[in-house]
Amino acid sequence: MEAAGSLGPGDPQPPGTAEGTAPMERSGREAASEEKSVGFVLVHAGAGYHSESKAKEYKQVCKKACQKAIEKLQAGALAVDVVTAALIELEDSPFTNAGMGSNLNLSGDIECDASTMDGKSLNFGAVGALRGIKNPILVANKLLSEAQKGKLSAGRIPPCFLVGEGAYKWAVDHGIVPCPPDIMATKFSLSAFRKNRRKLELAEKVETEMIQTKKRREVSENTNVTASLDTVGAVVVDHEGNVAAAVSSGGLAMKHPGRVGQAAVYGCGCWAENTSGPNVYSTAVSTSGCGEHLVRTMLARECSVALQAEDAHQALLETMQKKFVRSPFLAREDSVLGGVIVLRCCRCSLESESSLNTQALLVEFLWSHTTESMCVGYMSTQDGKAKTHISRLPPGAVAGQSLAIEGGVCRLRSPVT
Amino acid sequence: MEAAGSLGPGDPQPPGTAEGTAPMERSGREAASEEKSVGFVLVHAGAGYHSESKAKEYKQVCKKACQKAIEKLQAGALAVDVVTAALIELEDSPFTNAGMGSNLNLSGDIECDASTMDGKSLNFGAVGALRGIKNPILVANKLLSEAQKGKLSAGRIPPCFLVGEGAYKWAVDHGIVPCPPDIMATKFSLSAFRKNRRKLELAEKVETEMIQTKKRREVSENTNVTASLDTVGAVVVDHEGNVAAAVSSGGLAMKHPGRVGQAAVYGCGCWAENTSGPNVYSTAVSTSGCGEHLVRTMLARECSVALQAEDAHQALLETMQKKFVRSPFLAREDSVLGGVIVLRCCRCSLESESSLNTQALLVEFLWSHTTESMCVGYMSTQDGKAKTHISRLPPGAVAGQSLAIEGGVCRLRSPVT
Repeated sequence: MEAAGSLGPGDPQPPGTAEGTAPMERSGREAASEEKSVGFVLVHAGAGYHSESKAKEYKQVCKKACQKAIEKLQAGALAVDVVTAALIELEDSPFTNAGMGSNLNLSGDIECDASTMDGKSLNFGAVGALRGIKNPILVANKLLSEAQKGKLSAGRIPPCFLVGEGAYKWAVDHGIVPCPPDIMATKFSLSAFRKNRRKLELAEKVETEMIQTKKRREVSENTNVTASLDTVGAVVVDHEGNVAAAVSSGGLAMKHPGRVGQAAVYGCGCWAENTSGPNVYSTAVSTSGCGEHLVRTMLARECSVALQAEDAHQALLETMQKKFVRSPFLAREDSVLGGVIVLRCCRCSLESESSLNTQALLVEFLWSHTTESMCVGYMSTQDGKAKTHISRLPPGAVAGQSLAIEGGVCRLRSPVT
Repeated sequence: MEAAGSLGPGDPQPPGTAEGTAPMERSGREAASEEKSVGFVLVHAGAGYHSESKAKEYKQVCKKACQKAIEKLQAGALAVDVVTAALIELEDSPFTNAGMGSNLNLSGDIECDASTMDGKSLNFGAVGALRGIKNPILVANKLLSEAQKGKLSAGRIPPCFLVGEGAYKWAVDHGIVPCPPDIMATKFSLSAFRKNRRKLELAEKVETEMIQTKKRREVSENTNVTASLDTVGAVVVDHEGNVAAAVSSGGLAMKHPGRVGQAAVYGCGCWAENTSGPNVYSTAVSTSGCGEHLVRTMLARECSVALQAEDAHQALLETMQKKFVRSPFLAREDSVLGGVIVLRCCRCSLESESSLNTQALLVEFLWSHTTESMCVGYMSTQDGKAKTHISRLPPGAVAGQSLAIEGGVCRLRSPVT
């Protein structure tokens, strides 16, 4: 299982399709012992800029998240709970912009967005602008699972999307332990906030002076707030072939309080759909990057729809080009920043096996980004350890205009015939 | 311009296509005097249940909203501002579940959702769980127009979606006058709240007793909270052929604080897209009904996509059937409640005119709902007064499973050749 190469801006042909990368197979005996516990997880620690110096920490976080997910899968957990377990690890890291250590908003507070979708039930749970909860994904997962139980008292329809103070109260009422807000801010996020506040003051001073010359909003790039877009996410397939996806984000640095980004918006932050009807593949997607761009292009759902095409690599490439970088919804934007991780799977026969009835889950997984870099990790229940990787744009490529795309494929022996 | 008939549950054929209804045409002289001010508006005061006794008030509200929109259109306003003007009238009515007189939530507070989309720029603005602002649509419109101005200081991307306390502060900072919360609750909404609270207490008492017999959540329909789903909305086309859509809602009665429904969610509450690229038609859609159902089916955007088909009536019918009532995303729901208003338009030659170069805007407009009834109003700049109508399901049809669909068509002389 290896990553395929990245793709430059002027290169329409992928250097290798996902199908071309080394497939994972195990001997019959090994597979039989894991029969009830197959599965696969792909996580990301954000599309943004990952310096070489921080690469080690990001990879470590992804590795831990993958291992946690695989433990859960091996214990027979379903995709929707596995994806939550992976997200908790990612949120708990002080390095990612989710949960602990999230970006601070204009008022110096942490407000988080998170959502999750279950490909089996197609249920969705989301929280936006949530304060005082260490793991926003836990609340999203709880909203999803509570909705599965059916109507509330007096015929009321259970909510799938809660925000702000109301979301916090709902979480606490449902047994999720609150977290004092000052614990969630880390040294790093506080120092970034102070630096950004100074930049903002400077920029506003410069702009005030510029208003007279009618040059407002054409300030030098150097005064821009540090772009920390390290939203985290995961996609999972479990032993039943169910897919699930999740995403969690602290949002843009210095965002306005109450601002909700793609991580809480249906169809934009994550998507998961089991195979059914005309859909040959089960698909799961999680996005990262500039929330407003990902909302307006509904990128998660667009990727999921496109992944029903025969060639997953080509489908993702075209979606990123036509529906994101060159999307008519972002025609006025000179730089479109974001990334996705996607997974699709279908059942197939294991021709190399002696038993003709043996089936496998064929899992194709890919990531693509227009940001400088994107940190990913992946692991199957058949792997001894997680693989992690920092994908970077090819040399000379311009972030926000070019893209990288990579991926792999693995086969999982499936106990369900 | 008349409404076509409604459609029963077992009747796959519409009783008359939208194209078949009486088109509006005016003499050359009349049209010439209005050359710079053509346009059309379609509004709704909710898909839900409109008793005969309240029908008059609902129609009156729709009429006022249409007239306001037409005044704006005649003054040369663009669609995105016209749709806001119509929504303000609808929100200000104490009878609708939007702005003044909105449903109260579980805590007895009013929290509103609203959004608007501009088909020209494809910009979107939304607010969720907003308290203390009489006209939530004004904030959504302001978010949209502020985003049009480009980046904020220090390179920050302007928000398109704000919720809760942060949304309130942003609104006030941007010159929108706050409204004391107790003014927004009306006698009617307060009395409904008290009645619903008693039902809830009763239901929870009954359920507590039922837990022992494991019959939780199978309570009699009679104890259900009163379903007030009267979200309001509008779709508009202006003299340039731009479309816009908007929606505003107080949300479900007795909802959990912080709950956000479709009216604030991208692609779910409203959609507007000018013609471009492969899209022959400009389309605008606004939805109403059970927010969770409309979110999970992304109904506004689905309708917009479907309306690129040749037969608008058939396209809307199929979308309501396949993507809403029988949507795989709502497979577990026994009753799917909602409604839409849609508008699509394209330029066409006016063959009956002597001048061969004269072009017209052909506007097709439709509404469809699975609720007992839906109140709509429509008017063009060529009409002397608005038409209003309470569309009802055919006799014997079951709300939540059957649907009604009606519509009309009008031609507007266009000054743009």
